[in-house]
Amino acid sequence: MFFEGSEKKLEVVIKTGNASLRSRGRPFWESMVSAANAEILSILSNEHCDAYLLSESSLFVWDDRFLMLTCGTTTLVNSALLFIEDIGLNEVDFLIYQRKNEYHSQLQKSSIDEDLKRLRSCLPMRAYQLGYLDSHHHYLAHFNNPYEPKIADHTSELLMYHIEGDVADYLRAENQTCEGIRARLDLERLLPGFELNDFVFSPCGYSVNALRGTDYATIHITPEQNSSYVSFESNLDLGGEYSFILDGLLEILKPHSWDTVGFNCEPRVSKANQAHFVERCDLMLNCGYKVQFTHRKAKNETLLPILSL
Amino acid sequence: MFFEGSEKKLEVVIKTGNASLRSRGRPFWESMVSAANAEILSILSNEHCDAYLLSESSLFVWDDRFLMLTCGTTTLVNSALLFIEDIGLNEVDFLIYQRKNEYHSQLQKSSIDEDLKRLRSCLPMRAYQLGYLDSHHHYLAHFNNPYEPKIADHTSELLMYHIEGDVADYLRAENQTCEGIRARLDLERLLPGFELNDFVFSPCGYSVNALRGTDYATIHITPEQNSSYVSFESNLDLGGEYSFILDGLLEILKPHSWDTVGFNCEPRVSKANQAHFVERCDLMLNCGYKVQFTHRKAKNETLLPILSL
Repeated sequence: MFFEGSEKKLEVVIKTGNASLRSRGRPFWESMVSAANAEILSILSNEHCDAYLLSESSLFVWDDRFLMLTCGTTTLVNSALLFIEDIGLNEVDFLIYQRKNEYHSQLQKSSIDEDLKRLRSCLPMRAYQLGYLDSHHHYLAHFNNPYEPKIADHTSELLMYHIEGDVADYLRAENQTCEGIRARLDLERLLPGFELNDFVFSPCGYSVNALRGTDYATIHITPEQNSSYVSFESNLDLGGEYSFILDGLLEILKPHSWDTVGFNCEPRVSKANQAHFVERCDLMLNCGYKVQFTHRKAKNETLLPILSL
Repeated sequence: MFFEGSEKKLEVVIKTGNASLRSRGRPFWESMVSAANAEILSILSNEHCDAYLLSESSLFVWDDRFLMLTCGTTTLVNSALLFIEDIGLNEVDFLIYQRKNEYHSQLQKSSIDEDLKRLRSCLPMRAYQLGYLDSHHHYLAHFNNPYEPKIADHTSELLMYHIEGDVADYLRAENQTCEGIRARLDLERLLPGFELNDFVFSPCGYSVNALRGTDYATIHITPEQNSSYVSFESNLDLGGEYSFILDGLLEILKPHSWDTVGFNCEPRVSKANQAHFVERCDLMLNCGYKVQFTHRKAKNETLLPILSL
């Protein structure tokens, strides 16, 4: 059983003067999700945001922007192209498209190069690779257009690889429940005051979307042994007040290696977690975001060979 | 310009009583090389071995065994199947097939899973993955047959990623020569007494086969910036007397990260080179080889983002 947990990510901000993206309603967003080869499972809304839980990750829709994360072998670039065609090039203020290095890139329906080529047929994009090809690396492409993020517009990602320990074992076992996973992830402490909408996949896997006023967070877990992956993303300030969330997740899930990505935010972890091997890459985008990428892994390790049956 | 330097590797030993593999002559080996989608460039022979330099790496043929390394997008599994069909299953005493994690596995003509499936349609194979999927990892599959390696039958590989410095710059420049590369790699010191047969590719890239009595060595260099790769393989004792070769290559090529693989040999490096981050994986094969895999990388690093134009 192999499932590619790592996500492709699309975030788009439209120009003022357009109708609210939320007002487009579920059929429009169903077509967007369907373009990526995913499905909407459920929705959690508050006065600011509609948070769709997907068969492969998540979609958050605000009045003037949306954020879509899709994992597996989804074709998120199709959703990007569909959206641009629908709203018109001139109404796009900001667009960013990201891909992480996959465990098995040969199983993907397209490469980042192919995705970029298609995006560039519509709009000028600048593209970067953060990290070396032989290690964790992220591709990041953005609409090459001046843009000024709002104050406190920051996003952080924590991407964990090869989780271990009791909670990892529970996540891989049969008959997990949302309640059991929430408790083990300590979500009441890590996401205080958030409304949660979660789902347990069969035979395993877990997704949760979380909203609290204008704050959002999302966690996606692909627990399979030898290819496990867990992502956390939020607009909370993980470089400051909320850095305890990162330490909490790292302590609970015990990943062998992990990345952080910060947009106008430097995700911070405790001294103990800083003590690991690290590669780091910083990048100032001309669309107003300062990006920080770090890849960390446990100290020297002896690994067990994996027998492929 | 992207070229996948990392090699697939096939080694086969035939049972005693068969005609010498060398006596099959060039047309047979041409068909073997052609099955992998490569070509023979030249040959260096001594009384023990015929060493073919290929358009994509190397082929060494002894009386009772051969070793074939092919890089790029070659289809080495085809050569394995052709050989088995030609000689007959019952005449194969030992067979090992290896693949390293590629920079861009999505560009390969087949995955390791597909290769394995085809090999297993002919003969029982045991297969292992050494190293985690999110880091350097090697796939190793062998004919599941009792086999007893001869004393002093050891093989070592040093695989270097992201080379830097003056020599790397020279290798990437125009108009390199064999003499210029031999001098910069210090081959007279590192491979004393060896006969060399080398080739400079256009616009860049270098291969050398080396023979000295029953000893062989081979080096393949893919110097391209952002995806550089250099491999060294030999049956010299790199865990003992000849460990200076590894230190020499590491000092000259200054790779950002590197792997060693040892078969009945633990490739050894100086204290300075040991001081890097390391992952290690040991494996006892039931065909008589003890395999040691290590992956090492430089200490904490700040990387530059790569702009994809």
